[in-house]
Amino acid sequence: VSDTLKQLRERFGEIYDLSGALTIVEWDQLVMMRPRGAELRGEVVGTLSTILHQKWIDPAFGELLAKGAEETADRPDADPDKASIALATRERDRLVRIPTELASEMARHGAVAYGIWVEARKNNDFASFAPALEKHLDLHLQYIDRFPKTEHPYDVSLAQYDLEYTTAELNELFAELKRGFRPIIDLVSANPGAANDDVFLGHFPKATQAAMFNEFSLACGARADVWRLDETVHPFETAPSMDDVRITTRYYENDIASGFFGTLHETGHGLYEDGVDRALARLPIGHGGTHDLHESQSRMIENQVGRSRAFFDYALPIFQRYFPEKYGNVDAETLYRSANVMRPSLIRVEADEATYNMHIALRFEIEQELVLGNLKIKDLPEIWSVKMQELIGLTPPNDADGVLQDVHWSGGAFGGFVGYTLGNVIGAQLWPLINADLPDLDAQFAAGEFLPLREWLREKIHKHGRTYGTRETMRRIGIERIDPEPLRASIAAKAQEIYG
Amino acid sequence: VSDTLKQLRERFGEIYDLSGALTIVEWDQLVMMRPRGAELRGEVVGTLSTILHQKWIDPAFGELLAKGAEETADRPDADPDKASIALATRERDRLVRIPTELASEMARHGAVAYGIWVEARKNNDFASFAPALEKHLDLHLQYIDRFPKTEHPYDVSLAQYDLEYTTAELNELFAELKRGFRPIIDLVSANPGAANDDVFLGHFPKATQAAMFNEFSLACGARADVWRLDETVHPFETAPSMDDVRITTRYYENDIASGFFGTLHETGHGLYEDGVDRALARLPIGHGGTHDLHESQSRMIENQVGRSRAFFDYALPIFQRYFPEKYGNVDAETLYRSANVMRPSLIRVEADEATYNMHIALRFEIEQELVLGNLKIKDLPEIWSVKMQELIGLTPPNDADGVLQDVHWSGGAFGGFVGYTLGNVIGAQLWPLINADLPDLDAQFAAGEFLPLREWLREKIHKHGRTYGTRETMRRIGIERIDPEPLRASIAAKAQEIYG
Repeated sequence: VSDTLKQLRERFGEIYDLSGALTIVEWDQLVMMRPRGAELRGEVVGTLSTILHQKWIDPAFGELLAKGAEETADRPDADPDKASIALATRERDRLVRIPTELASEMARHGAVAYGIWVEARKNNDFASFAPALEKHLDLHLQYIDRFPKTEHPYDVSLAQYDLEYTTAELNELFAELKRGFRPIIDLVSANPGAANDDVFLGHFPKATQAAMFNEFSLACGARADVWRLDETVHPFETAPSMDDVRITTRYYENDIASGFFGTLHETGHGLYEDGVDRALARLPIGHGGTHDLHESQSRMIENQVGRSRAFFDYALPIFQRYFPEKYGNVDAETLYRSANVMRPSLIRVEADEATYNMHIALRFEIEQELVLGNLKIKDLPEIWSVKMQELIGLTPPNDADGVLQDVHWSGGAFGGFVGYTLGNVIGAQLWPLINADLPDLDAQFAAGEFLPLREWLREKIHKHGRTYGTRETMRRIGIERIDPEPLRASIAAKAQEIYG
Repeated sequence: VSDTLKQLRERFGEIYDLSGALTIVEWDQLVMMRPRGAELRGEVVGTLSTILHQKWIDPAFGELLAKGAEETADRPDADPDKASIALATRERDRLVRIPTELASEMARHGAVAYGIWVEARKNNDFASFAPALEKHLDLHLQYIDRFPKTEHPYDVSLAQYDLEYTTAELNELFAELKRGFRPIIDLVSANPGAANDDVFLGHFPKATQAAMFNEFSLACGARADVWRLDETVHPFETAPSMDDVRITTRYYENDIASGFFGTLHETGHGLYEDGVDRALARLPIGHGGTHDLHESQSRMIENQVGRSRAFFDYALPIFQRYFPEKYGNVDAETLYRSANVMRPSLIRVEADEATYNMHIALRFEIEQELVLGNLKIKDLPEIWSVKMQELIGLTPPNDADGVLQDVHWSGGAFGGFVGYTLGNVIGAQLWPLINADLPDLDAQFAAGEFLPLREWLREKIHKHGRTYGTRETMRRIGIERIDPEPLRASIAAKAQEIYG
């Protein structure tokens, strides 16, 4: 190993460790820390972030990366040094474009705007949040200005989230999705009584839910000596390293579905981190992949696995074991139908598979217009209502259930929403390929055997970490272009089965 | 505020935050992390420690400290800037004396030797640990060599732990303790049947213990929005800041005493951190005080409070509420006598108040001889047996219950043990002063009122953080010299009461 590569690996390791420290400190803040600690914890996060940023933008690091790229030019793209240098160079190029003052103003305003948003949402009062959002938009436009001109300025917003698709490509994708899902939404809206989810309502003590969710997570492939499952307000997954994976969920004691599907979703994210090749530890590529690929894994465990008919043959006895009174007389078919209730609703995070992507389309369209300057912040509640009616057939009765529902904009995050839909689309494209390789998948699920699926995902996707981006990962599996048809077809079939 | 002080405060804040991050990351490793994460967590700890060390030894920081000391020379010693500069200067002077290679070899060998010690202890085989300990001693002697000559080389070992007393002074103290405790140990050894702790044995489910311990901790003054109580193998207290205090305990389901008194002990430590003036946050003085003062607080809550007769008038109904079958027919007097069983034993961490300091005397004497080169590592088991017999009247049947029992030496830690005894002595010296100011203390304890005591400790000790050292803190309260007599007298009285 050359001296350059040795020095690069040391710097990669340092950055990996500092990011890991930040991950732990932020997880602790959300999961363990008592409320009084928040203010001084903010200082810890600020100091660690600043040191990490200094490590990234250090000019000597830039020179080493350039030298390393030269030295490894002849190696295959999958070579861990070469792939790490490429990824770190991209990330560093992005970071050095942003002046420190802009970066810290964005972070500072995020903290302020979050507090304003919480209040505004509680009071159903978008007007009080509008000036803070206005400022976020202004800062975001300054951010976009630091990058070379793109066909659409929103392309820069997307690239921020590792998304490899342009605004134009995604507009095409969403046009297809809107066309394709219209009949599905019409079908389920016309026949709302065909299914209900009463079977998930009742009384479910928190500790019993936690034990049951943990059992499902382990069955899906979580390793007990690596994973933790804890409680938070908003479920998430995070991993300081592939040897230390943490998922969280929430427990509604009157409704078991939210925590249950939330746990499966985060388990999907966790399997990605858990599956990264251990040899990639302390390298930039030593974490799970891009935002949209990551989301394809979480949505796959939640929906293709956890909402499949076969899954409930395995799950029913477990539900019965933990909650014998509630599930003693329930059958697997009922659980399956209840897990697949489709019912247009106002809130994205509670949306079913039929309408979920329409919620994303709405945000995607609004964000584009904001970035183009075609839309005034003050008009957001109105445009939100119009689009909700058009896409989902509902009108929010107030701002809290409409334009104020998501946390994202309070942090100035524009451009990431489409990753959720891309995840849905990609997962559905992978599914026929997985089934071709594993023809017994349904029988395996019914028997509670999820390790063959995990091994497939690990071999084809997880183990490579961030070696490849989304397009290249899919190309290597045999998928040449993003295509919403498998997703549409699978949801249409389910809708037909339950609501037809 | 001058530019120098502004820059110093920024650097102090950065160091405080990085230390806080390390505290969280290490707490997480012991309390939350799954075992597989250990190796990569070690890298995170190493990277954070290295960055922290670089911040400390930065020559520009040294120059700022010198300038700041000049600028604040005319201020009172208690001025937060002046006190912080003084403390940071002392700490920095210590750190810059140690070459990076020596520091990292000490840390690295600590990790290796710990593993060897665990095995050696399990196999009762001191010989297999001896070479690792030999190397630790050699490194420690190199450490001592980096400091100006002192009367006794062990003075440097002590100073490492903020201890302000010389080897000579402590030898005098221990001579008095040995003389004074001899009759107490003889008394309780002669009459072993006078008391027993059967009342703490039985079946105590972990969750019930946890709920009860937490109630006691809160009653003693722990704030619910600041503190956590968790489970570990070895109880400890740690605090990223005065707004975030964490204690741990252990649960033996067949013996409630260990977790109970452990919780009280760590609560005492936590109250010190919790009580530091919030205005000192992000300054070097913004943590609890010296090692021996800290130990005086933990031993006070454990022993002067938790083993007092009045305490059990308050505690009995709580024991009965959590464990009605076990404690329904027990009275407070029985609990009190059981909490004060004195019985010479081999293991320091299980020692009663009569013999505890003799365990420390043994280690203190051995460490001095090691540092002087008068004692060979291979002879440690023999000298241990001889001294145990002389001081406590017992001979360990094997190395695990003798020379291999403590973790400290596996980390190369020489010099810290005496802090425990100093804590006992100081706590007993404070007690008559506290009782003079709070004449109703017993009645308050019996009524479960511990906040007047907490306020006294906060006002006289806690709120100052590390503004003053041990001697100055005591001088300000009215104690001019360290004196073992109050400790001896109080234990002698208890021994007379129960064993007389």
